[in-house]
Amino acid sequence: MMELLLKEGCGFDCSSNTELILSKAVGACGSKIMFSSNDTPAEEYYYANEIGAIINLDDITHIDFLEKIVGKLPETLSCRFNPGGLFKMSNGIMDNPGDSKYGMTEEQIREAFILLQEKGVKHFGLHAFLASNTVTNEYYPMLAAQLFELAVRLHKETGADIRFINLSGGVGIPYQPDQEGNDIAQIGAGVREKFEQIFTPAGMEDIAIYTELGRFMLGPYGALVTKAIHEKHIYKEYIGVDACAVNLMRPAMYGAYHHITVMGKENEPCDHLYDVTGSLCENNDKFAIDRKLPKIEMGDYLFIHDTGAHGFSMGYNYNGKLWSSELLLKTDGSVEMIRRAETARDYFATFDCLPVYKELNRIMENKKI
Amino acid sequence: MMELLLKEGCGFDCSSNTELILSKAVGACGSKIMFSSNDTPAEEYYYANEIGAIINLDDITHIDFLEKIVGKLPETLSCRFNPGGLFKMSNGIMDNPGDSKYGMTEEQIREAFILLQEKGVKHFGLHAFLASNTVTNEYYPMLAAQLFELAVRLHKETGADIRFINLSGGVGIPYQPDQEGNDIAQIGAGVREKFEQIFTPAGMEDIAIYTELGRFMLGPYGALVTKAIHEKHIYKEYIGVDACAVNLMRPAMYGAYHHITVMGKENEPCDHLYDVTGSLCENNDKFAIDRKLPKIEMGDYLFIHDTGAHGFSMGYNYNGKLWSSELLLKTDGSVEMIRRAETARDYFATFDCLPVYKELNRIMENKKI
Repeated sequence: MMELLLKEGCGFDCSSNTELILSKAVGACGSKIMFSSNDTPAEEYYYANEIGAIINLDDITHIDFLEKIVGKLPETLSCRFNPGGLFKMSNGIMDNPGDSKYGMTEEQIREAFILLQEKGVKHFGLHAFLASNTVTNEYYPMLAAQLFELAVRLHKETGADIRFINLSGGVGIPYQPDQEGNDIAQIGAGVREKFEQIFTPAGMEDIAIYTELGRFMLGPYGALVTKAIHEKHIYKEYIGVDACAVNLMRPAMYGAYHHITVMGKENEPCDHLYDVTGSLCENNDKFAIDRKLPKIEMGDYLFIHDTGAHGFSMGYNYNGKLWSSELLLKTDGSVEMIRRAETARDYFATFDCLPVYKELNRIMENKKI
Repeated sequence: MMELLLKEGCGFDCSSNTELILSKAVGACGSKIMFSSNDTPAEEYYYANEIGAIINLDDITHIDFLEKIVGKLPETLSCRFNPGGLFKMSNGIMDNPGDSKYGMTEEQIREAFILLQEKGVKHFGLHAFLASNTVTNEYYPMLAAQLFELAVRLHKETGADIRFINLSGGVGIPYQPDQEGNDIAQIGAGVREKFEQIFTPAGMEDIAIYTELGRFMLGPYGALVTKAIHEKHIYKEYIGVDACAVNLMRPAMYGAYHHITVMGKENEPCDHLYDVTGSLCENNDKFAIDRKLPKIEMGDYLFIHDTGAHGFSMGYNYNGKLWSSELLLKTDGSVEMIRRAETARDYFATFDCLPVYKELNRIMENKKI
């Protein structure tokens, strides 16, 4: 999966050592990896620097922190910007950067750029993430304008050689079936317009634009396919499936909507009202609440849409539930397993230093797990 | 930990195969294990039955489902009750069993008890979980009265030999420091009073009472100890620590309050206002928002209270973050590691069938992970 993306020219946005290791293992290096982290542990800065990832500093205090860890600072560094206040769009969508833990104030970035140049840093980048999962063509150009104008001011004030702007993520997808999605070409044109309006007159046209469009690119192209294994008729109608919040936490954590199609019943009327539940001992473990769906029979497969981002990677092991495998459907129709299912042996691995592990192993061997 | 609880006379309430395996591995068996599950996968019923756990049926449809899996039903079975509607207490706390996916209606349990007796089941239990983390001495006796009266009716109507009532959980703990906790002796007396009022006149005194007091017994006796590694001064004051929602998800998932003490500064004035954050790329990864605490220096240890339940076990690997170890502080002051920290190797284990695993291994070996 990551190998495919790399081949298509993508890089990776990482925020932990395991993500950095994975990126390196699939062959990414240097500027193909951006390390955007906050409250960063020392060992993660160390390793990001070791493999030449572009480090995006979340805070001005991280300059000293990073320098102590790596000795000589890298030639290129990025700073993350937080404008504070509210970020408002004309469609009413807004986010609250002032309440967000990320990034630096403009004054801090100015100070950082001066200090970093004194410390030998030669090239700079800027990054900001101000709103999540926006479904409007307006957000990205607005964000771009803010960052481009900031870049012009910072360049004028500090002389810093700004080489790239990372517009980060926030370009969302329509989770609701009747919602109109983003028009990425229009978004691109909007960003280009801001670029030409702001950078061209400032003579700063040699600036690269990076994006983090993971959700936009992958979200709609992943699905959680799960089988109906129980039905229940009490004060509401329930369909129990063989997946649970372990496989997809967004509905439980954010009350997020994920569209559901009953496979083979795409054209049947949605005349039944169901709660679709997983098996966790948590009442929030419901993939859908009061959802109109066709009549579901035991054994039917439910296709839970748009789980290609913030899906599996947000999974947990609550109640000791194990992760399922991940499959890649290829353009030629073949299927490749890209992660095997977790076993009890994996789950118990961190007990391997304890006396009980011997007995766990004996049980697992008898059960052929 | 589980071994200690078993030695103290406790049993285990399980809802997955891994929990069953763990319980068996520490030496629990038969009636020491209650298997309370919902939307249960076939293999979990199979294994619960194999090790003789008491199975608590979540739904009337599970009778057929279980019978198909195990052949002959066990001699003892429990049924989970859901009264529907709202459960109200005089202090305004209420929960909404009518919206909860668990349990059966009274009519269904009546039908189930009749059917199960025909199928050879000899002894019965009842279980209901109607409200979570109640901090009032009133809840448990109210719940007990409901279940005891239900047991009397069911016994009269179906002749079922009811051997136990499992009052489940819901007896909470005071997460807020100024909150008065439950008085467990008073709760016990309240349950006894209901028992004597309801079971004694009905001649049903030979009924065991089970409880699931995991949160009450363990919650206050676990803590997440974490070090302040970053401070940040933007539109708010932030303290970044070396733990994150991976170690404790309740604040991120439920906005739950966990009290925080800065170690060694217990008596200093709480005159600073902080957000205490972890390092996930999620703005909800905050252990505290606008919390008054003493001035925190880098290197200070923060003691996050009441994480002994729904803490580590609810952890996830979001952003590829790894789990920390768990330590047991013993009465003699010694410390025992009861789970080792997760490594990148553990995290990548489910890639072991892929070509990239070789490269992951090479990197991990070079990094001495």
